Amino acid sequence: MSHNTFGHLFRVTTFGESHGVALGCVVDGCPPGLPLEAEEIQAELDRRKPGQSRFTTQRREPDQVKILSGVFGDDRTGGRQLTTGTPIALVIENTDQRSKDYSEIRDSYRPGHADYAYDAKYGIRDYRGGGRSSARETAARVAAGAVARKVIPGVTIRAALVQMGPHAIDRARWDWDAVARNPFFCPDAEMARFYEGYLDGIRKDGSSIGAVIEVVAEGLPAGLGAPVYGKLDADLASAMMSINAVKGVEIGDGFASAALRGEDNADEMRSGNDGPAFLANHAGGILGGISTGQPVVVRFAVKPTSSILTPRRTVTRDGHDAEIVTKGRHDPCVGIRAVPVAEAMMACVLADHYLRHRGQVGTTP
Amino acid sequence: MSHNTFGHLFRVTTFGESHGVALGCVVDGCPPGLPLEAEEIQAELDRRKPGQSRFTTQRREPDQVKILSGVFGDDRTGGRQLTTGTPIALVIENTDQRSKDYSEIRDSYRPGHADYAYDAKYGIRDYRGGGRSSARETAARVAAGAVARKVIPGVTIRAALVQMGPHAIDRARWDWDAVARNPFFCPDAEMARFYEGYLDGIRKDGSSIGAVIEVVAEGLPAGLGAPVYGKLDADLASAMMSINAVKGVEIGDGFASAALRGEDNADEMRSGNDGPAFLANHAGGILGGISTGQPVVVRFAVKPTSSILTPRRTVTRDGHDAEIVTKGRHDPCVGIRAVPVAEAMMACVLADHYLRHRGQVGTTP
Amino acid sequence: MSHNTFGHLFRVTTFGESHGVALGCVVDGCPPGLPLEAEEIQAELDRRKPGQSRFTTQRREPDQVKILSGVFGDDRTGGRQLTTGTPIALVIENTDQRSKDYSEIRDSYRPGHADYAYDAKYGIRDYRGGGRSSARETAARVAAGAVARKVIPGVTIRAALVQMGPHAIDRARWDWDAVARNPFFCPDAEMARFYEGYLDGIRKDGSSIGAVIEVVAEGLPAGLGAPVYGKLDADLASAMMSINAVKGVEIGDGFASAALRGEDNADEMRSGNDGPAFLANHAGGILGGISTGQPVVVRFAVKPTSSILTPRRTVTRDGHDAEIVTKGRHDPCVGIRAVPVAEAMMACVLADHYLRHRGQVGTTP
Amino acid sequence: MSHNTFGHLFRVTTFGESHGVALGCVVDGCPPGLPLEAEEIQAELDRRKPGQSRFTTQRREPDQVKILSGVFGDDRTGGRQLTTGTPIALVIENTDQRSKDYSEIRDSYRPGHADYAYDAKYGIRDYRGGGRSSARETAARVAAGAVARKVIPGVTIRAALVQMGPHAIDRARWDWDAVARNPFFCPDAEMARFYEGYLDGIRKDGSSIGAVIEVVAEGLPAGLGAPVYGKLDADLASAMMSINAVKGVEIGDGFASAALRGEDNADEMRSGNDGPAFLANHAGGILGGISTGQPVVVRFAVKPTSSILTPRRTVTRDGHDAEIVTKGRHDPCVGIRAVPVAEAMMACVLADHYLRHRGQVGTTP
Repeated sequence: MSHNTFGHLFRVTTFGESHGVALGCVVDGCPPGLPLEAEEIQAELDRRKPGQSRFTTQRREPDQVKILSGVFGDDRTGGRQLTTGTPIALVIENTDQRSKDYSEIRDSYRPGHADYAYDAKYGIRDYRGGGRSSARETAARVAAGAVARKVIPGVTIRAALVQMGPHAIDRARWDWDAVARNPFFCPDAEMARFYEGYLDGIRKDGSSIGAVIEVVAEGLPAGLGAPVYGKLDADLASAMMSINAVKGVEIGDGFASAALRGEDNADEMRSGNDGPAFLANHAGGILGGISTGQPVVVRFAVKPTSSILTPRRTVTRDGHDAEIVTKGRHDPCVGIRAVPVAEAMMACVLADHYLRHRGQVGTTP
Repeated sequence: MSHNTFGHLFRVTTFGESHGVALGCVVDGCPPGLPLEAEEIQAELDRRKPGQSRFTTQRREPDQVKILSGVFGDDRTGGRQLTTGTPIALVIENTDQRSKDYSEIRDSYRPGHADYAYDAKYGIRDYRGGGRSSARETAARVAAGAVARKVIPGVTIRAALVQMGPHAIDRARWDWDAVARNPFFCPDAEMARFYEGYLDGIRKDGSSIGAVIEVVAEGLPAGLGAPVYGKLDADLASAMMSINAVKGVEIGDGFASAALRGEDNADEMRSGNDGPAFLANHAGGILGGISTGQPVVVRFAVKPTSSILTPRRTVTRDGHDAEIVTKGRHDPCVGIRAVPVAEAMMACVLADHYLRHRGQVGTTP
Repeated sequence: MSHNTFGHLFRVTTFGESHGVALGCVVDGCPPGLPLEAEEIQAELDRRKPGQSRFTTQRREPDQVKILSGVFGDDRTGGRQLTTGTPIALVIENTDQRSKDYSEIRDSYRPGHADYAYDAKYGIRDYRGGGRSSARETAARVAAGAVARKVIPGVTIRAALVQMGPHAIDRARWDWDAVARNPFFCPDAEMARFYEGYLDGIRKDGSSIGAVIEVVAEGLPAGLGAPVYGKLDADLASAMMSINAVKGVEIGDGFASAALRGEDNADEMRSGNDGPAFLANHAGGILGGISTGQPVVVRFAVKPTSSILTPRRTVTRDGHDAEIVTKGRHDPCVGIRAVPVAEAMMACVLADHYLRHRGQVGTTP
Repeated sequence: MSHNTFGHLFRVTTFGESHGVALGCVVDGCPPGLPLEAEEIQAELDRRKPGQSRFTTQRREPDQVKILSGVFGDDRTGGRQLTTGTPIALVIENTDQRSKDYSEIRDSYRPGHADYAYDAKYGIRDYRGGGRSSARETAARVAAGAVARKVIPGVTIRAALVQMGPHAIDRARWDWDAVARNPFFCPDAEMARFYEGYLDGIRKDGSSIGAVIEVVAEGLPAGLGAPVYGKLDADLASAMMSINAVKGVEIGDGFASAALRGEDNADEMRSGNDGPAFLANHAGGILGGISTGQPVVVRFAVKPTSSILTPRRTVTRDGHDAEIVTKGRHDPCVGIRAVPVAEAMMACVLADHYLRHRGQVGTTP
């Protein structure tokens, strides 16, 4: 069962509510002997941290991570902390909780939010800041992802925002270096400049907007994944769809492949110096659920933030019609902060499949 | 671990290769006391069966299912077979195997197929008809789905082909009754007539084409699913992406929601006679990973069949350049037969979540 | 996979090393709406806490538990905290760590301990106080067990020490009330008095001694468990064997049943007012892996503490012969503190099976 | 979830009832490239097969196994069949079913059997021959075990009957070669001769008797297993306890260790040519849940067959008092045929842990 656990050999169990005492995760199955310091995890968390520009929530959480277990170092390890193969517990305390901001949502269901669904399921919910359904949970994912990145050698995992609202980037201008230089994680510097004004407008309207994120893993060996329910793409689809507000996932050409003819879609091959080389990557690096050695390319759609200042019709917990305006500090485009989360989920899935493959087949692919 | 197992409380383990002795599945966790006859499973299999029109592979498999275990009946059950709560093993023998058709693919990797990936992973593969990576495996899913349908009372699960190549149906003409009346499972009768000529042309060109399938579950109670890795939509994404040739999955508005503003996307609510009513279903029936009681709507993209008569460049197993033409009996649009498979996967996911919910929360939602 | 996770629907993931920052667990799958306060968990922890008599380790850990997530209360719940159905994270900080006591075991393997096995597996280990292999991990189990006890209504779970060294209690003198009145959790008050002198002697010798613990669950409905690898007794065996130093587990008559004839072993039945009544309980409440409604009776053997003051032959990490004396603060009979742990494991297994049964069969048995 | 599935990376899912159409299993996760012929599996099944002496049931099942999937061979493999890494389905048809023999147990619960527990759980059961609770299910385990044996190189797994009724063998006379030369799998030839007359007497009395089985794995590397719920001994305990009629499991000294003092129990070590050597094996080859490289020694108790000719008091399905005599063809000592089953379960557990270790740690231990 997997309510709050993700993965099999590399397993992440997260816990915590938006305004509870703390959130965090337990990473189980991490191989021993990998150097791991809190600072490295912190660096990833800082990329996701709110309040870094006017385009993300102004909630100010330091999001300071603490490693509770699973690492050890002494003079024999040169003072460095190494993973020991035992579970790594990571905790982030909640400090900026301002519960009063959220008192209204106690009684009225916010459209587009999980409020009603949680009540229908559990009959009780921690409504403060969305409780367990808050995107704040993704901080724990990012922390786990920082561990996962260490598991597979030689793989580069990067994500970027490639569309905001109806405005897709120009792929000809793709520049990975640009990603760190604008507040949108956008690889198209020109489009990023456009987004500034565009998102300012949306924010001032009290509205929000959707986005598309692309994640790419390069340097992955062929052979990860497995038929037929342990497919690498099936697990990636599950991983990305489990991120808050995600409504669609595609691999390689994705939905566009529906419109293609066979000869345009299937990636041809030629012999190369390091084994077979593909002449295109419509498949997004995965065939039959197994990696081919090409870059693994995943895209997903993030719906617009549901918390907006425009009044919306809803019902109250006890069944009366109402109107609701979700005040508080919200991301006008929640897709932006999904970028480091996407990398983390990709890292976790790949680490898991790497260990699974090594278990079953015995070689390091 | 889940290489060939799907689900948790309602678990399906499939086995079998395209041209092996048999394929089938073990359905574990099915509640006891449900009437189950082979004929009911057969009816679902017959919908997926190849060779029913000129638009699907001409391979002629009777696909006759046999129940090996897990059911029991005597005079006390009125002669009906009931499930007993023990594992239900279903087997379909392979009869029309013509292994000679596939001898060429032994040495050359077919572009777009899993041949190369399997070899990279396992170092050995059953190349006859694609072996384990053949869409023939989905027969076992359809059989399992027939069992799954019995688990949740009052739910209607239907799928349809809504796009072939670039040609999407007109949703204004949607008619579920039309689905059974054309060889494409298409709910738009007019478009179905167009597809006849369109697909004939593609078939005659020795090519193939992609498609988009939509699956809808109606009558589902609110409350199925769970945060944050047991989300109903994450499991549906995994389920659909695990179907052969699927490259993208979306829920509700899916990728279109990236272009929406918050006030256009979040489904408002009003009080109703039977609890809260939603005024729209952009969410596709799922919020925060939990069903809302609205119809659950999933769409997925199927790439064009990779087995085509057009010569393609490839490499051989021992690293030489080659050309390959995939003869044999192939579906020009493999998306068509994915329609009953999609229903089966939806049924399996819902059955699993229904039992999970009942376990954790104790009520029948 | 289950390295540090126990259970399926009621899932416990523990983490932490003996001398690390903290230890704890995440309890996932707990039903919503159950009252849960830290004090209740603390009460169970206090029963296991070291340093309560001269017969257990003099390490003085307050073992103060903190609930980080998964509960919520406001005026609507009458101020009480209720479980919300989301993961419950419990943390216990390590405070009395005195790492210096353990410096010698860094280089020499303690006979009977996991030191060598961990090094052989992981190549690295946190040797302070046994690290992950320390019985200190069982504090997390006891905390989880306190939650588990709330899941099944009407069940009484109690454990007792029934043998120390070769000295078994007299079952005719069994008195559950005696258990809380002696430092051995012994139900035979007379034998408990004998144990005082006996264990004092062993402690003064710098030695240690084994024990047998019995756990009984009463009030359990018939029907929990499942064929054939989800058997209730198989899960109980795994649960008890996973406790530190346990070397044997038996259900009902256990090993004694090997010497019985069929007519002496099989429990006969007669009709009763509340359904069938058994005339004996050789089976220990479980037949075919499923509970019968009789008391579930499990016993397990705990080996003597391996940390003793008597010098033992061993090897060093780099392969030289050595002698070792394990100083520090150790329990002369580690079986004593296994008593509350046994109750906790029984509670976790029963909670899990209760939820599993409810999921599959839909009724509360 | 694991109702009918055992293991994680090496996973066995069994199905089938005693008198159903067939029984069998799906072995998932088996590494590719291992030679596997039906004959090899058959050889193991033949050791377990009923009707081979007057001391086992006279039911005459040929127990012919068929491999349905997961293997492949052609001229490139030298005509040998190799595993392909895909699921291996094994099926054994039921042929000698004589359902009429079992008509009485439809309405009356057999003491010591699972009849009542199944009815309490499921409300329905296949009562023919015990249905799913029949020891006939263990044929599927033995088949799976034959595959598992291939996974770990250099390990010898052997089991033997070491006690029948109160009569334990003399360990000084232990001779593995004797095991195949008597109908009891007994390593003490002299005791085996005694058992002949002893068991004849019990059989003639219409009674039955219990037994103790010992399983030993030699050649296992150190490092298999994992803290704290993936312990090798915990999984072995679960595996053995899941065998029909087993009521107790112990590792190494097991229950005897309760009576030991620390200095007598902890196995001392000395340096050796091939790494550290243990001077004794009280631990049974496992410390802290991880293998030490010493022989892994497991023992378990099997209760006497519950199906006896002596009339027993019971109740009927509708609650009336009754007497029952279980006619039919039953093993007077069901422990005998548990011997090959024990080897199979040991093989499955070790294969699983071997692959898990290889996954997490990356080396072949």
